[in-house]
Amino acid sequence: MPTIRGLFPLLAAAMLLCSGAASTQSKPVLRPNIVIFLVDDMGWQDCSVPFLKERTPLNDRYRTPAMERLAASGVKMTSAYTSPVCTPSRVSMITGMNVTRHHVVNWTSPFRDRNTDNPDRQLQPVTWNQNGLSPVAGVPGTIHATPLPWLLNRAGYYTIHVGKAHWGSSGTPGSSPLALGFQVNIAGQSTGHPQSYLGEDNYGNVQPKWSINAVSDMQEYHGSGTFLTEALTREALRALDAPIRNGQPFFLHLSHYAVHTPIMADRRYLQRYLDQGLDSTEAAYATLVEGMDKSLGDLLDFLRDRKVEDNTLIIFLSDNGGLSLAPPRGGKPFTHNLPLRAGKGSVYEGGIRDPVLIRWPGVTKPGTAIDVPVHVDDLFPTLLDAARITDARPLQTVDGQSLVPLLAGRRRDLGERTFYWHYPVKWIDNDGPGINFHSALRRGDWKLVVSLRTGKKELYNMRDDIREEKDLSAARPELVRELSTLLGRRLREMGSPMPRIRETGAVVSYPDEN
Amino acid sequence: MPTIRGLFPLLAAAMLLCSGAASTQSKPVLRPNIVIFLVDDMGWQDCSVPFLKERTPLNDRYRTPAMERLAASGVKMTSAYTSPVCTPSRVSMITGMNVTRHHVVNWTSPFRDRNTDNPDRQLQPVTWNQNGLSPVAGVPGTIHATPLPWLLNRAGYYTIHVGKAHWGSSGTPGSSPLALGFQVNIAGQSTGHPQSYLGEDNYGNVQPKWSINAVSDMQEYHGSGTFLTEALTREALRALDAPIRNGQPFFLHLSHYAVHTPIMADRRYLQRYLDQGLDSTEAAYATLVEGMDKSLGDLLDFLRDRKVEDNTLIIFLSDNGGLSLAPPRGGKPFTHNLPLRAGKGSVYEGGIRDPVLIRWPGVTKPGTAIDVPVHVDDLFPTLLDAARITDARPLQTVDGQSLVPLLAGRRRDLGERTFYWHYPVKWIDNDGPGINFHSALRRGDWKLVVSLRTGKKELYNMRDDIREEKDLSAARPELVRELSTLLGRRLREMGSPMPRIRETGAVVSYPDEN
Repeated sequence: MPTIRGLFPLLAAAMLLCSGAASTQSKPVLRPNIVIFLVDDMGWQDCSVPFLKERTPLNDRYRTPAMERLAASGVKMTSAYTSPVCTPSRVSMITGMNVTRHHVVNWTSPFRDRNTDNPDRQLQPVTWNQNGLSPVAGVPGTIHATPLPWLLNRAGYYTIHVGKAHWGSSGTPGSSPLALGFQVNIAGQSTGHPQSYLGEDNYGNVQPKWSINAVSDMQEYHGSGTFLTEALTREALRALDAPIRNGQPFFLHLSHYAVHTPIMADRRYLQRYLDQGLDSTEAAYATLVEGMDKSLGDLLDFLRDRKVEDNTLIIFLSDNGGLSLAPPRGGKPFTHNLPLRAGKGSVYEGGIRDPVLIRWPGVTKPGTAIDVPVHVDDLFPTLLDAARITDARPLQTVDGQSLVPLLAGRRRDLGERTFYWHYPVKWIDNDGPGINFHSALRRGDWKLVVSLRTGKKELYNMRDDIREEKDLSAARPELVRELSTLLGRRLREMGSPMPRIRETGAVVSYPDEN
Repeated sequence: MPTIRGLFPLLAAAMLLCSGAASTQSKPVLRPNIVIFLVDDMGWQDCSVPFLKERTPLNDRYRTPAMERLAASGVKMTSAYTSPVCTPSRVSMITGMNVTRHHVVNWTSPFRDRNTDNPDRQLQPVTWNQNGLSPVAGVPGTIHATPLPWLLNRAGYYTIHVGKAHWGSSGTPGSSPLALGFQVNIAGQSTGHPQSYLGEDNYGNVQPKWSINAVSDMQEYHGSGTFLTEALTREALRALDAPIRNGQPFFLHLSHYAVHTPIMADRRYLQRYLDQGLDSTEAAYATLVEGMDKSLGDLLDFLRDRKVEDNTLIIFLSDNGGLSLAPPRGGKPFTHNLPLRAGKGSVYEGGIRDPVLIRWPGVTKPGTAIDVPVHVDDLFPTLLDAARITDARPLQTVDGQSLVPLLAGRRRDLGERTFYWHYPVKWIDNDGPGINFHSALRRGDWKLVVSLRTGKKELYNMRDDIREEKDLSAARPELVRELSTLLGRRLREMGSPMPRIRETGAVVSYPDEN
């Protein structure tokens, strides 16, 4: 039995040991694991989950039981937005910057210094950040910003990218997810779509027809019957093993190439859709959707089986509206997102409304819906907030807002917010509805659509008219003027690129100029 | 001031806290970080470090200051061995199995089920594990074994592969380093050499000349002037940041494509070698060597600057002897490893003797040399031993032995060991010295070389005759018989593939049969 004199040093030593142990460990903040499940080109109606109050024929066409499961256990964001095409949304997602600010206004070419805009007779192509996002300064044609995965990694997250990257052109740092803060990169490159979804085609790694869109890293599956979506899922789950085993929080960006073109059938699911009477293209498209959903289901099962689902925040989203050009889609053009108008490339709702699902056990309320408008710009601050990273200090000014108060039910809205879209380029040869040279704005229930080519303005009330059929601009000239002022001021303040008229060399009118 | 009664609970609580902290942490075994720095096709004389007692003209030709630095701070293994070509060595390295056991006797094709052996008029090609190593059972044409990175990862190591993999053919799991236990894979694929070392060539990712040897994952450097060796090094150091920051032990397999063909000049170093009077090929080869050495230097600097060098075990090695066919090498064939005989593909010393350097601060004695014969098979048990992994229980029987007692100076040798080489295939069209259809054995100072085609046997004393010029087989028939018995027994016991004679269909004679 030690005396008092003997006890004190023992106690002191024991306490010292404790404090020593504590100082070598990170602080005991329980950070949630984070999964961004990103689908490429998926439309707002490409699922069996109704994002409108009423079910639609498209909800009945597609089969996405895992999305239903996620919706039932999480929250459905019914007024979520993206940019009309992929790279702008992807850059916004991991920087929090709106497209009017980052100036990556179009999809980036896999080749450096190549403008992907189509030539136009009336308007000159604009100068924009055509090489995409860069994590380092001084790279011409890029926006230099602090990427989300880098911040999460610095805060102790194990960061994994799987699938489509498409943040920057080859020959620039942004082409590599490893340079953006991901510790692990599987199949992410500078390209925006796969050369093939088929293992039988080695995902495009074949001679002599090889193109830069051949998918890297998946040689294990070459010559097999494994569809790319399935192969990426298996690799993602394999990559999750390490952080789960080590008890390290993880950030998984599972970014499917599906459901982007080439529209190729995943034979596991094809017959069901042919039996529905769909043409072969639309049936194949539906299999791309169902294969993507199977991936989500596998992920949900995995998180449950590995006992991490309770501490995992999952965000499901698409990077833009569903493609609705025909061809390559089957059927009539601009009908694939009905009741939304138009599709990918358009500033109408079909091009920008996003089927977002969020599940964060203990925070989100299962089976609920939130109709407050939110934007892909919000992901960056939301995830920093969720991860309790308060010292991020990114280089860039962040346009988005954290959705955590909304998700947690602490707030019913996020105040009166204004969202901007700016697509001052030519995406396709012939202008489509809201496609090529358009800007737009949403504030409250009101949406202003502006053609940069013609100066024409349209005004819609999103609460009454989600189809954007009733142009109220003539009836509400003052509101049009007010919203035009907001949009014009934003474009000027941000120095957003504006097309010039070939004939005169003059910049087209800003929305508040006519 | 607490009373005794008050003190006891406090002490108990403090101790409980301590033990609680200890139980959530891994056991406080200090595991060393491990780096395997593997060079492809580097010969024993391709450096300014003398592996012979006396310097050679080749030591004066090549410039490898980082290797000199590593040798000065570590130990030089002057009698280290590999297989005559790459995949057999690479499989041995991460399984501990000798080639006579794993039956991956030749380099594996990037394409599945393709035998890379050249056809021969006299002998049929053998059946071997031509798809390489597999981490899972049931893959035809593979050896199923437990790979080292998997075991290290399970034990808590952060496992990184950078560069050439070449463990298995596309379409099998072994083609992916991720399936072999690496958490991170950068540019590792089923191929054995790069299509190009030049960033200007996108490392081979160019149309229309693309081949499967185009290097994946390096799009960040496409179109830049970054030589592949440099780009891989930068990626390796970037990948090390995460485990160092987190205090996690790491295993880095930095596996350069250099100095394998295509022999392309790294312009940073070319002039020096042209000024020496070397032909353009040999000058380019020397730049491949110096670029590799620069990578080693960068790594050593990085480990020092990040303050982890004291707890990092580095093993520098090549996977086989230096290529000595001419062309593609300049000058006279089979002179590129002098004084060693022949080169890559041969069971003579030029094909199998390996310039190995090992540094393990606190264990290896700086600036020393160990002349005890060791083998690439020894790496697997050595690294498990160094990492104090005692419960590995790999599927396979391990042929190698831990070198730790030798490195630590606890033992002066590892007992009387026998090493086997078995290369029962045709590597090049016309037989070269010790090249095509040969087996060999080393026991003590003695080496037996057997032609499987002719049955001819040679006997050399490696202590007196490292050049293998004095065949003592006629003078020592009993020793030849004894060693032939050992070799023949080994090949039979292991079921090692043996060629058959086309005319008769009969297996060629085992070494102990004639």
